[in-house]
Amino acid sequence: MMINNNNLTDRLRGIIPPMVTPLEDRETIDVEGLERLIEHILAGSVSGLFILGTTGEAPGLSYKLRHEVIERTCLQVDQRVPVLVGITDTSFTESVKIAHHAADAGVDAVVLSAPYYFPAGQRELLSYVRNIAAELPLPLFLYNMPSHTKMTFGPKVVRRAMELPNVLGLKDSSGNMVYFHEMQQLKEEREDWMLLMGPEELLADAVLSGCDGGISGGANLCPRLYVDLYEAARDRDLVRTRELHRRVMEISTTIYAVGEPPSAFLKGLKCALSCLGICSDVMTEPFQRFMPSDRERIREHLVELGLLEGASL
Amino acid sequence: MMINNNNLTDRLRGIIPPMVTPLEDRETIDVEGLERLIEHILAGSVSGLFILGTTGEAPGLSYKLRHEVIERTCLQVDQRVPVLVGITDTSFTESVKIAHHAADAGVDAVVLSAPYYFPAGQRELLSYVRNIAAELPLPLFLYNMPSHTKMTFGPKVVRRAMELPNVLGLKDSSGNMVYFHEMQQLKEEREDWMLLMGPEELLADAVLSGCDGGISGGANLCPRLYVDLYEAARDRDLVRTRELHRRVMEISTTIYAVGEPPSAFLKGLKCALSCLGICSDVMTEPFQRFMPSDRERIREHLVELGLLEGASL
Amino acid sequence: MMINNNNLTDRLRGIIPPMVTPLEDRETIDVEGLERLIEHILAGSVSGLFILGTTGEAPGLSYKLRHEVIERTCLQVDQRVPVLVGITDTSFTESVKIAHHAADAGVDAVVLSAPYYFPAGQRELLSYVRNIAAELPLPLFLYNMPSHTKMTFGPKVVRRAMELPNVLGLKDSSGNMVYFHEMQQLKEEREDWMLLMGPEELLADAVLSGCDGGISGGANLCPRLYVDLYEAARDRDLVRTRELHRRVMEISTTIYAVGEPPSAFLKGLKCALSCLGICSDVMTEPFQRFMPSDRERIREHLVELGLLEGASL
Amino acid sequence: MMINNNNLTDRLRGIIPPMVTPLEDRETIDVEGLERLIEHILAGSVSGLFILGTTGEAPGLSYKLRHEVIERTCLQVDQRVPVLVGITDTSFTESVKIAHHAADAGVDAVVLSAPYYFPAGQRELLSYVRNIAAELPLPLFLYNMPSHTKMTFGPKVVRRAMELPNVLGLKDSSGNMVYFHEMQQLKEEREDWMLLMGPEELLADAVLSGCDGGISGGANLCPRLYVDLYEAARDRDLVRTRELHRRVMEISTTIYAVGEPPSAFLKGLKCALSCLGICSDVMTEPFQRFMPSDRERIREHLVELGLLEGASL
Repeated sequence: MMINNNNLTDRLRGIIPPMVTPLEDRETIDVEGLERLIEHILAGSVSGLFILGTTGEAPGLSYKLRHEVIERTCLQVDQRVPVLVGITDTSFTESVKIAHHAADAGVDAVVLSAPYYFPAGQRELLSYVRNIAAELPLPLFLYNMPSHTKMTFGPKVVRRAMELPNVLGLKDSSGNMVYFHEMQQLKEEREDWMLLMGPEELLADAVLSGCDGGISGGANLCPRLYVDLYEAARDRDLVRTRELHRRVMEISTTIYAVGEPPSAFLKGLKCALSCLGICSDVMTEPFQRFMPSDRERIREHLVELGLLEGASL
Repeated sequence: MMINNNNLTDRLRGIIPPMVTPLEDRETIDVEGLERLIEHILAGSVSGLFILGTTGEAPGLSYKLRHEVIERTCLQVDQRVPVLVGITDTSFTESVKIAHHAADAGVDAVVLSAPYYFPAGQRELLSYVRNIAAELPLPLFLYNMPSHTKMTFGPKVVRRAMELPNVLGLKDSSGNMVYFHEMQQLKEEREDWMLLMGPEELLADAVLSGCDGGISGGANLCPRLYVDLYEAARDRDLVRTRELHRRVMEISTTIYAVGEPPSAFLKGLKCALSCLGICSDVMTEPFQRFMPSDRERIREHLVELGLLEGASL
Repeated sequence: MMINNNNLTDRLRGIIPPMVTPLEDRETIDVEGLERLIEHILAGSVSGLFILGTTGEAPGLSYKLRHEVIERTCLQVDQRVPVLVGITDTSFTESVKIAHHAADAGVDAVVLSAPYYFPAGQRELLSYVRNIAAELPLPLFLYNMPSHTKMTFGPKVVRRAMELPNVLGLKDSSGNMVYFHEMQQLKEEREDWMLLMGPEELLADAVLSGCDGGISGGANLCPRLYVDLYEAARDRDLVRTRELHRRVMEISTTIYAVGEPPSAFLKGLKCALSCLGICSDVMTEPFQRFMPSDRERIREHLVELGLLEGASL
Repeated sequence: MMINNNNLTDRLRGIIPPMVTPLEDRETIDVEGLERLIEHILAGSVSGLFILGTTGEAPGLSYKLRHEVIERTCLQVDQRVPVLVGITDTSFTESVKIAHHAADAGVDAVVLSAPYYFPAGQRELLSYVRNIAAELPLPLFLYNMPSHTKMTFGPKVVRRAMELPNVLGLKDSSGNMVYFHEMQQLKEEREDWMLLMGPEELLADAVLSGCDGGISGGANLCPRLYVDLYEAARDRDLVRTRELHRRVMEISTTIYAVGEPPSAFLKGLKCALSCLGICSDVMTEPFQRFMPSDRERIREHLVELGLLEGASL
């Protein structure tokens, strides 16, 4: 068991894009878009693929659609990289159900944040992690996402969760680097424990200080950029790290800054993928794709960033 | 259509307890407890029953269990009072599905808060309400619950939602009386629009200032108290209103104050119902029922409040 | 001592407007405006005058100006009503100093919120109250204002503060009616303890449920309205209470809604006073008075509200 | 003017400790402690000294004491390093006054956060910065401290403030590294613009990504450690940077973790300085120095960290 886990965490080190979910409409996957997007991402030498996370709009999808996304992704990826599936849910049973569905489809690990309607205390969060880890058919990554779940996996909860052999690591999307550095202190207590950075703006800092990689949303758009940044930071090439980090910041302050936070990131990303002809920009309710004027701004930013040819404007 | 709505809102005026969901374990309803609880509540002359709300721990229940709660409740209530069902969900499709299920079971109206994982803006919230109202087979009440959903139904959204004939009213659980008074100003613009107060500590204020009733969690425990308070305030009997309100505050500062907020309310309520022999106190994950020491404090409070005989201690 | 306190609290029952501070410029009081404003307010049969509070922009004034406001106000009021002075400060010593200055000028009591730069815990807050109460030459009212101070006077702190004879009561500006009702429960433990409501939108609720009055900002503008509302609610005239409360809500949703919160209230109020010719609308930094377009909207609202003749437009 | 500024910013690059204020009691400076502390800090090769900031408890000191701290510090430092003085205040006039006092005493620059009682909007914040910069006799650093001031110097405000020649840079204590990286993008627009990191846990990240230094509270305790970390990161020695960063994290998760946040940092720091015999641990109200049991935990941590000999226990 330990050995298998080590293998998985070794393979996952690097960039694991949190894939957006291409949709034709509320109940229909944009199947061709999904396949194109997967090929676009895998061409960038990523280490894994994370589906049905926040960027994948999982909570907005029906269970039927979530199942379909799992199956189609596994088929298309065809074991070229490990696939991770988000199973965060307000219902314990539904989380376990989707994990079993994922295991049947050939998924490699699941990712779980706190149940997010009714905030609980730290002791309850720990007991929840223990109870659910005992029922899951796949290895588990914890996912710290306090802005959306109203709960933080505090240091004490993480330390105890590290004692569970099928919990393999933590993805931190808090944006709180002080917390992240505490997590890096904890990481030293277990050799195969993975620590992954969520916000791509903090990827360089995180890898330079020793973390294992990033779940970078922008890697839907330019997977190679984030893989290059990860490798430069891992290899301690500070000049190149800064140069690539600057590029990531340019994307962040243009593509993700057109709409209103906190959904601007997601809308900008889907819109950019649509402008590049990769997949549809249909969003799950209550979100709506950008209007033509905002889409035009995204196009202009893509041209400035050199990601799209300006001639077509 | 309008006439039917008016009938429903007329019947609902008063106390509509948000029923807790009695559980034997994670996937099993405490059926006898559920039936006893319904009879206990209906004996208090309430105006309706609201199931699968926040107090009903709906987000923590599997869909299978939610369906079962709907069916069993409708059977037990047998049209003695209108039944309302919470359909709040992060997935549009799942909300609509459960509404159809509720309609088939004979439910009278559904209750909807904002999708609660990824906060949206006000314009998106309005378009969401319009889109879902168009797909629902039952009349709809909006449910303002910003502490859990991170979104408020702002005055502009409510004013536009009031133009939709199958949206019948608003339940406000924000605890923000300034907002509530703004909602009361709006209420004057539509005759059959219902405005209901969530937190029972504000029931007296709300009814004295003209609202239609309350979704009071404590009415699981002592339904008659809340009905009496509603009626005293409606009838402008200020002396009696204050006396009954003081009683409500005593429950609030004892039974709901044993554990840690924000789940203390829910745990205390379920524990008290269990102490009274009405139903089980099993909670949905990540919450846990009170330990014996906290349960003992609840028992003592129930004795002090005269809700339980002290001899049994 | 107790007897004197009782006299003061008896006299204060009712409306105690938190006076705005009329300014000519950053370091100059609009002296004529101040005098006109005091006369305008006293003509409304208020029970007291509270200067140098949040509405008085005290933290934005230099100490020299604060001293001048105290002296000029005491001279102008000339003991017709009790004068209260805000002494909230981040520095213990400066709070005590201004209290002594106030005592010398003939002020009747001081009002103190928590030191507001660096938030403290509840135990520290209690020890702070005890320490400062021991050094003050005047009776003290506590002032709960968590939105600005980041600290709440929790029930335990208030209960212990009630044991201090020169602490006479609490003004609650939290806007949290559940908290307020807890404070009303506590009030029963000390006969001469005063409980005063801050936000005027909650004045009717608060007085109907038994509190002693309100520190209503709008009473700068129409003192008689708030006094009438207080009296109607105190006398349990519910029909009149609702009618006057509706009027208060009309002011709140027009005059206070022109700019952006949380300063909109203050700018709208000062602008309205300026439109009525009572005093200047110069604000303390970092705030700026309304531009002509916003001022025009205030004028229009004043005309609609019947507070200004339309002909002059 | 520009040339002088450049000189100052060149000299300041590195670690500028935010000095604690040693007190004997509420109104008395611990003069010997202050002198010992300054010598202790300067022995660590720091680049400057920042007094009367958050760590210096400035808002809790009377103006008389603040003046005394300025004078005594300038005398003791005697131009060995530049001295910076915090002038943040809720009153514009008091900020300007203390800046003039500082200029007279020989201070090199002042540091200003937003007025912190009544939160303002971004436009008002910009106009405030412009107005006050025009009145100051010394160069100015902005200080972003949203946890205490409730206001952020947003990118647009900073960009416009960079146009003011006597505004020299920004200290960011938000702890938000995404914001900090946006500030680093802006920094490229003005050659002599300084960007300084507040929280010491983020010093390594910040310097590795190109910022100019840190205002590290822990440099009161072990100035050399922070100077070494700054230099290692500046010189891109990643191995040494990580090693020293780990040491900083050990201090952060021990010395600053004994009490309750957010004052735990400050109490732990003053207590540690007292244990080392450098200065008194008396705090400004409403804070209290640690009780013996907490002080003992600080001693133990100091021994573990090798900062204090264990024999004396």
